[in-house]
Amino acid sequence: MSLLHPDRLFPADPATRAIARGLYAQVQGLPLVCPHGHTDPLWWGDNPAFSDAAQLFVIPDHYVVRMLVSQGVAFEALGIGEGAETDPRKIWRTFAERYHLFLGTPSRLWIDHALSEVLGIDMPLNPNTADDIFDAVNAALTRPEFRPRALYERFNIEVIATTDSALDDLAPHERAADWAEGRVVPTYRPDAVVDPNFEGFSANLETLSSLTGCDTSTWQGYLEAHRTRRRYFIQRGATATDHGHPTAQTLDLPQAEAALLYDRVRQGSATKGDAEAFRAQMLTEMARMSCEDGLVMQLHAGSRRNHSGSVFAQYGRDRGFDIPVRTGWTEALHPLLNAVGHDPNLTLILFTLDETAYARELAPLAGAYPCLRLGPPWWFHDSYEGMRRFREATTETAGFWNTAGFNDDTRALLSIPARHDVARRCDSAYLAGLVTTHRLSEEDAQRIAPLLARDLAKAAYKL
Amino acid sequence: MSLLHPDRLFPADPATRAIARGLYAQVQGLPLVCPHGHTDPLWWGDNPAFSDAAQLFVIPDHYVVRMLVSQGVAFEALGIGEGAETDPRKIWRTFAERYHLFLGTPSRLWIDHALSEVLGIDMPLNPNTADDIFDAVNAALTRPEFRPRALYERFNIEVIATTDSALDDLAPHERAADWAEGRVVPTYRPDAVVDPNFEGFSANLETLSSLTGCDTSTWQGYLEAHRTRRRYFIQRGATATDHGHPTAQTLDLPQAEAALLYDRVRQGSATKGDAEAFRAQMLTEMARMSCEDGLVMQLHAGSRRNHSGSVFAQYGRDRGFDIPVRTGWTEALHPLLNAVGHDPNLTLILFTLDETAYARELAPLAGAYPCLRLGPPWWFHDSYEGMRRFREATTETAGFWNTAGFNDDTRALLSIPARHDVARRCDSAYLAGLVTTHRLSEEDAQRIAPLLARDLAKAAYKL
Amino acid sequence: MSLLHPDRLFPADPATRAIARGLYAQVQGLPLVCPHGHTDPLWWGDNPAFSDAAQLFVIPDHYVVRMLVSQGVAFEALGIGEGAETDPRKIWRTFAERYHLFLGTPSRLWIDHALSEVLGIDMPLNPNTADDIFDAVNAALTRPEFRPRALYERFNIEVIATTDSALDDLAPHERAADWAEGRVVPTYRPDAVVDPNFEGFSANLETLSSLTGCDTSTWQGYLEAHRTRRRYFIQRGATATDHGHPTAQTLDLPQAEAALLYDRVRQGSATKGDAEAFRAQMLTEMARMSCEDGLVMQLHAGSRRNHSGSVFAQYGRDRGFDIPVRTGWTEALHPLLNAVGHDPNLTLILFTLDETAYARELAPLAGAYPCLRLGPPWWFHDSYEGMRRFREATTETAGFWNTAGFNDDTRALLSIPARHDVARRCDSAYLAGLVTTHRLSEEDAQRIAPLLARDLAKAAYKL
Repeated sequence: MSLLHPDRLFPADPATRAIARGLYAQVQGLPLVCPHGHTDPLWWGDNPAFSDAAQLFVIPDHYVVRMLVSQGVAFEALGIGEGAETDPRKIWRTFAERYHLFLGTPSRLWIDHALSEVLGIDMPLNPNTADDIFDAVNAALTRPEFRPRALYERFNIEVIATTDSALDDLAPHERAADWAEGRVVPTYRPDAVVDPNFEGFSANLETLSSLTGCDTSTWQGYLEAHRTRRRYFIQRGATATDHGHPTAQTLDLPQAEAALLYDRVRQGSATKGDAEAFRAQMLTEMARMSCEDGLVMQLHAGSRRNHSGSVFAQYGRDRGFDIPVRTGWTEALHPLLNAVGHDPNLTLILFTLDETAYARELAPLAGAYPCLRLGPPWWFHDSYEGMRRFREATTETAGFWNTAGFNDDTRALLSIPARHDVARRCDSAYLAGLVTTHRLSEEDAQRIAPLLARDLAKAAYKL
Repeated sequence: MSLLHPDRLFPADPATRAIARGLYAQVQGLPLVCPHGHTDPLWWGDNPAFSDAAQLFVIPDHYVVRMLVSQGVAFEALGIGEGAETDPRKIWRTFAERYHLFLGTPSRLWIDHALSEVLGIDMPLNPNTADDIFDAVNAALTRPEFRPRALYERFNIEVIATTDSALDDLAPHERAADWAEGRVVPTYRPDAVVDPNFEGFSANLETLSSLTGCDTSTWQGYLEAHRTRRRYFIQRGATATDHGHPTAQTLDLPQAEAALLYDRVRQGSATKGDAEAFRAQMLTEMARMSCEDGLVMQLHAGSRRNHSGSVFAQYGRDRGFDIPVRTGWTEALHPLLNAVGHDPNLTLILFTLDETAYARELAPLAGAYPCLRLGPPWWFHDSYEGMRRFREATTETAGFWNTAGFNDDTRALLSIPARHDVARRCDSAYLAGLVTTHRLSEEDAQRIAPLLARDLAKAAYKL
Repeated sequence: MSLLHPDRLFPADPATRAIARGLYAQVQGLPLVCPHGHTDPLWWGDNPAFSDAAQLFVIPDHYVVRMLVSQGVAFEALGIGEGAETDPRKIWRTFAERYHLFLGTPSRLWIDHALSEVLGIDMPLNPNTADDIFDAVNAALTRPEFRPRALYERFNIEVIATTDSALDDLAPHERAADWAEGRVVPTYRPDAVVDPNFEGFSANLETLSSLTGCDTSTWQGYLEAHRTRRRYFIQRGATATDHGHPTAQTLDLPQAEAALLYDRVRQGSATKGDAEAFRAQMLTEMARMSCEDGLVMQLHAGSRRNHSGSVFAQYGRDRGFDIPVRTGWTEALHPLLNAVGHDPNLTLILFTLDETAYARELAPLAGAYPCLRLGPPWWFHDSYEGMRRFREATTETAGFWNTAGFNDDTRALLSIPARHDVARRCDSAYLAGLVTTHRLSEEDAQRIAPLLARDLAKAAYKL
């Protein structure tokens, strides 16, 4: 028996709720299209068993870890860092005793869903049930039906994209292809060889050279190396690139100037401004390559990574200390859009952590330039209120067809159905509100619901 | 029979909806006060017939054009640019086949309203009905009751202001005056002689000189020329000026410094900073003139015009590629407000495309300075959600009386009743929500509804 | 009989309203914890009678004064400035005649509540009742039960903090302690000796020196003087400091550099950049002292004080012309948080006037750093919509336990119960909405409601 209410996330007004139910019923069972996320390719390549509940739900989940840390829990108590707790049961208890901290957050929605719907646990998680649930989860994880490939089938995933370094050999993807050709595809993420501030940037350029046989000591050779790697990714099923930048700045410098900039960057003599300029220039170069090879381009901008120096030094990346900053798009994208914004072969999907840009900049831009699509609410905004604000702020200017559907963006495999379910419920609720306020006919809402749940993502990502 | 639902845009909650209905019933039939917009003065001066549905609804409407372009339609297919399609029926079909793109947008509300309520079309627009509706619209347009002056009367317009270049001779207004004295008034819009980046700025200054007999080669002569033109507009019924600036920046330089700045600007040696400074200084000068001659001042700030260089070069202005940018007001208006912010003869109405300023800056400013009023939600925000956000973000700090009512801001004559109707419905919905949550008595709501629909606009614009 | 509706501020939807009622019933009668506000310590030390309705409700209330001024009322008519009106009845009438201006604002909610619930007036305020209400209020004020200490008891205040200059001798607090030990506590607000732009800054440094016996001509002596004053405040019950800064900028300069900066600041040769840098550095120094002495730190950032030069010159501070500006937090707090953000002895409570930071910066920061808590919606946002936006924007990322409960932040004694009542109603409404949309169980909502009403404030402020 499910612990989740069948009407969760639907509007309170009874008439609107009835319509939302109807729309959701239509899309609830559609296959999951997962065009952007961070699942581990090894899961798909090697189909390993997950070890335990703490490893599955706590230790690697930056949403969970940061919330516990924010309330005084030490990283070490969560199994992170030198001399950390090694007993997963103790880590799980630390989490379960503080599960109330997640009331009202999407993490709680996702974890409740995973426990109840995926793992079949019929008790609510709290300090009293912690041990029983820990044991039940671990017992489940030993069974074949909880291995990644079985979950893929059970979740009704149609296709899933991973996010992979430009330097990755994609070997797990090849092994996955033996199992499910074309249903697990890589994404070209070149931050490690595009961002001069990335750890090991110089060495990465050399690796890029050796992988491609291109001379990365010249600007033209460096660009050619990207083209070569992109072809490598395309041959293994990639349909998209992804770019995680601190800002949305783009540039379109004369090639001679770009070559000089590259020289400074390559030789390690780049100023802070040079680094930003180089990232900006490379977005336009990547867009130009997309015009050639057809890879859909994604831009995730506006996160100040590793805000806490001590957390980064002691515990590394992705520990919940990436904090958004204000992000402008209108001026920032101007160089790129003026270079290639009307190229019919380009699709550029935009993701923001600064919601103020939705109505002010992003919807007007996407409602004009043919290459642009709006990605779904991202990260902190991948939530009930976040999705509501996104639709309310973008639809009136950009409509529905300039959005790119949903993606789950997750590292947590068991949360995938929960995340799609939340999006399908929230979009059904939004559409139902349009219907009861007579801004949309019920017929049109029924036509749009599956677009938002599945079809727009497939189309935008060419999947 | 109308295709529009009588309860459209009203709240879903039945009790709130009943109150909204009652409030709307009170204001639905009030005359339309249109203090700011872009109707063509020739319509009022010469009362021409409109040619066809494509010319009426598609080609000149930047909301419609940009949405179609954003989904891959060529400008040429919309009758715009060299070698463009010339058959209006084909243009209309291109539009009708993609009318679903407008689901959820205000454009669709407006066009549905115009087709159903103004033109009496009793079929929904879609690819199957495209030709029949095209023929029906065109047939209607040949009839006298669809000429501009007849529509003016039928729409129950009380007064309408156009927006006119400072260099305009206002001849159509004089011809309109023979028909309806004082009911079609011009607005003084001096961007062409205030913005050094305006096309033909130098030539415009010479025209200004020859129109006024003032020596625009000196700062004092230039200011005197403005005073002269403003008198010319006032004599023809103007009660307001309008200023479209990229930012809200104002300045109050010492006059000697302003004169030097003007010299640089006039001689074409202005830097980018000079141009911004000159526009900023001129806002304060215009405010000072308003203190003298009583013209109400409007400031529309925050649009990055002609974002796509290629669209501007090939297809010209107002094609949907003006994109908002972040706009600060607190610091920007400081010089002007410190110069004349307490002058009882000044009214300055502010319009923003950056909604984040509503609660943070604009409502606190308008809730303090006696000269300030908040203009209604503008452009992308002239919509159901935009109006809701505006009221929710401004009312608690600025109240109702520091707002300036509604204006339709439109180039599309047939959309005027729709736009006022949307505003009246949205304000009724907002007030009804205050009533059911007991933040306002129903009696007070009934008192406020007509203010928002008509009276505040008349008062703010001195009409 | 109360004029206030018992269901005010509750959601319109009947099912949600019923839940909100139940939650509110639980918290309505809880004692008031008032950890931050601006009540006059003399009220608590000396228990004086209030003079009249105009002094109580109009003249010192910057919310009321600015709104009347924004609609053309002269400060002088409100009893402010040279040659001002001195008859409180006339001032009251000026207010009452324009009481409609406050429709839809929190000021009206608060004043209606104070008149009806605190003073027992059973007529609505309007021009016709102005004189009768004026007389009734004044008659009440002569009675002992309307003196401050009696109101303290009647309001069921558990503890109240005032906000006091670092240079204050806290004598009224000592007299208050005789009456109610530990129930009226001071707060250390050092702006006068931390902000180089504060009026009389140099003289203030000398006063600081003479009060503490520390040599404020050196950086170390100056810091020691702060430590000494903080101890003085702690001995008199203080548990917190408060910092009102134009921006949230912090710095963590090397001490030698900070000492040089202090020299420039002390000698009056500070540039504008130096002043900002010094304030920024002092926030980090204050945080370090909090790590030592345990005082909870509050930061109120983002107000452009005294925006109108002429209002400041003629009528002084706090007249309603402080206007918010954009405020960034992620980069601004970086130096402080990297210095002491993980110190278990630090609590830093953040208040913003820029709501765009809620979801983008403040909730992610508070949902990660253990020292951070989010203060309740502040000033213009201390309202129905402001509270709604705060919860909707912060809960999903920061949860409930990273917020600091409510504080009334008021100078207006009679508004204290109204303000807490509004917060309790709004939070009940918000929680009820989570329950009907099945984002929270009713049981969990019942557990959280008293936290928001009282317990989180007590805990965050160590009261």
